[in-house]
Amino acid sequence: MRFVSFEYQWGASWGRVEGSEIIDLGVGAGAPRDLRSALATGGLTGFTEGPRLSAAAVRLLPVIPNPSKILCVGHNYESHRQETGRAKVANPSIFTRFADTLVGAGDPIVRPRVSTSLDYEAELAIVIGKGGRAIAEQDAMAHVAGFACFNDASVRDWQWHTQQFIPGKNFPGTAPFGPELVTPDEIADLDAVVVRGLLNGVVMQEAPVAHMLFPIPTIIAYVSQFTPLSPGDVIATGTPGGVGAKREPPVWMKAGDVFTVEIDGVGTLSSRIVDEA
Amino acid sequence: MRFVSFEYQWGASWGRVEGSEIIDLGVGAGAPRDLRSALATGGLTGFTEGPRLSAAAVRLLPVIPNPSKILCVGHNYESHRQETGRAKVANPSIFTRFADTLVGAGDPIVRPRVSTSLDYEAELAIVIGKGGRAIAEQDAMAHVAGFACFNDASVRDWQWHTQQFIPGKNFPGTAPFGPELVTPDEIADLDAVVVRGLLNGVVMQEAPVAHMLFPIPTIIAYVSQFTPLSPGDVIATGTPGGVGAKREPPVWMKAGDVFTVEIDGVGTLSSRIVDEA
Repeated sequence: MRFVSFEYQWGASWGRVEGSEIIDLGVGAGAPRDLRSALATGGLTGFTEGPRLSAAAVRLLPVIPNPSKILCVGHNYESHRQETGRAKVANPSIFTRFADTLVGAGDPIVRPRVSTSLDYEAELAIVIGKGGRAIAEQDAMAHVAGFACFNDASVRDWQWHTQQFIPGKNFPGTAPFGPELVTPDEIADLDAVVVRGLLNGVVMQEAPVAHMLFPIPTIIAYVSQFTPLSPGDVIATGTPGGVGAKREPPVWMKAGDVFTVEIDGVGTLSSRIVDEA
Repeated sequence: MRFVSFEYQWGASWGRVEGSEIIDLGVGAGAPRDLRSALATGGLTGFTEGPRLSAAAVRLLPVIPNPSKILCVGHNYESHRQETGRAKVANPSIFTRFADTLVGAGDPIVRPRVSTSLDYEAELAIVIGKGGRAIAEQDAMAHVAGFACFNDASVRDWQWHTQQFIPGKNFPGTAPFGPELVTPDEIADLDAVVVRGLLNGVVMQEAPVAHMLFPIPTIIAYVSQFTPLSPGDVIATGTPGGVGAKREPPVWMKAGDVFTVEIDGVGTLSSRIVDEA
């Protein structure tokens, strides 16, 4: 199944995607009013079906517009670790984003006025369904509600002001997240899924999930040791090699560019770059 | 004025402190139900006064129990920069905490089962009153609702797993924050205010606010460039030298220890260490 969060003339809601239609699941009596709340009920089935909407008639929101926690993994593909010259480490490198950095699949990425070093990072994001603390690796996948495309777009000069990545990863409007939450049953072989990043149609990044240095269950186990996870929490699992910053000369995204995250079976997330107003 | 967030038999509320009493400000018709919501109305005066409670009869919560953002500054006192061997940098080092790391002034600090490297960091926290983006240094202090004591207690081995501090700074129950929000008019000379950290009554850290490498207006200006600030957001402004990790041999906090953050005119925040259950 595939789910979306969206905004339409009556406000914000969420629903299940069927072809070119969305079945509104946020309007029934007692219905959870957003996808995060729906996940907190323990599952995404059994809700009263509201009107069928044309997908073209809504504005997509970030898959989870209001996660309690967004955790991101740095240097999690060998090709990206090598290009950044980072040492091999025994544990995943974790940083965070605030929810106001997220944008929906139809929204642009905003290049802030204070920087021209705007870079892309195509990533597979996981959304937590069942919360927990100190989740064992072997149980981890049972805590995943689904997958979505994520662009961990980075303001590199601000990311590198100090060793802490937070500033360059938290400008508003820099993290497209969508279009859909895809449940695990839709993905036959997760390891074989390829994560691709395309700048104006040219493939810049490409690697299968199998190339992750820390596989998804390991990430969930590690993260949940230090912070409790809740339904709707988001983990962006890292980006393959090929980022703009490590090219010669560096490639920065500029107004008018389109960056696309393309993940087999998960979706296509295309974002136009605009300059901050 | 001094404000607290607290829990009592009727639930959670907030109020103004007068001597040994708290005037409950969260119960009037239309009253904001928490201190963050009160700040969002634009000020902390003019609310209907509810019952006067004995301060001894309530359980203090973190000053702001539910901040949207908690930003922390690393190595912001020269004495701490030197002991950590960090290079001088042109911009503040910023990391984040999740709100579930906060605990109230009467609550213990929890040493997680997975580590014995629990360290203290006495800090002055500021609470944002008026939100904003790209706040100019000269306007920054007008965005501060007040000050509070903060203990940025750190699980050092997890902090040092990689260059990103997030894991070691986000174990639940590691950030005492309180007891009170103290409005700026109560502090005659902020630069002269001394931040002290005491382990079992012995002074381990001590420096005046004037020793900050990045003064508070600079921090607010820097942070608000990359992330919008909202009422109730918290910035922990860094810790003076003397942390346990840099002593020879290192000093780690263990069950039964008491760590006290003592800040002139702002308050005293004593926390007992307990082992994770």
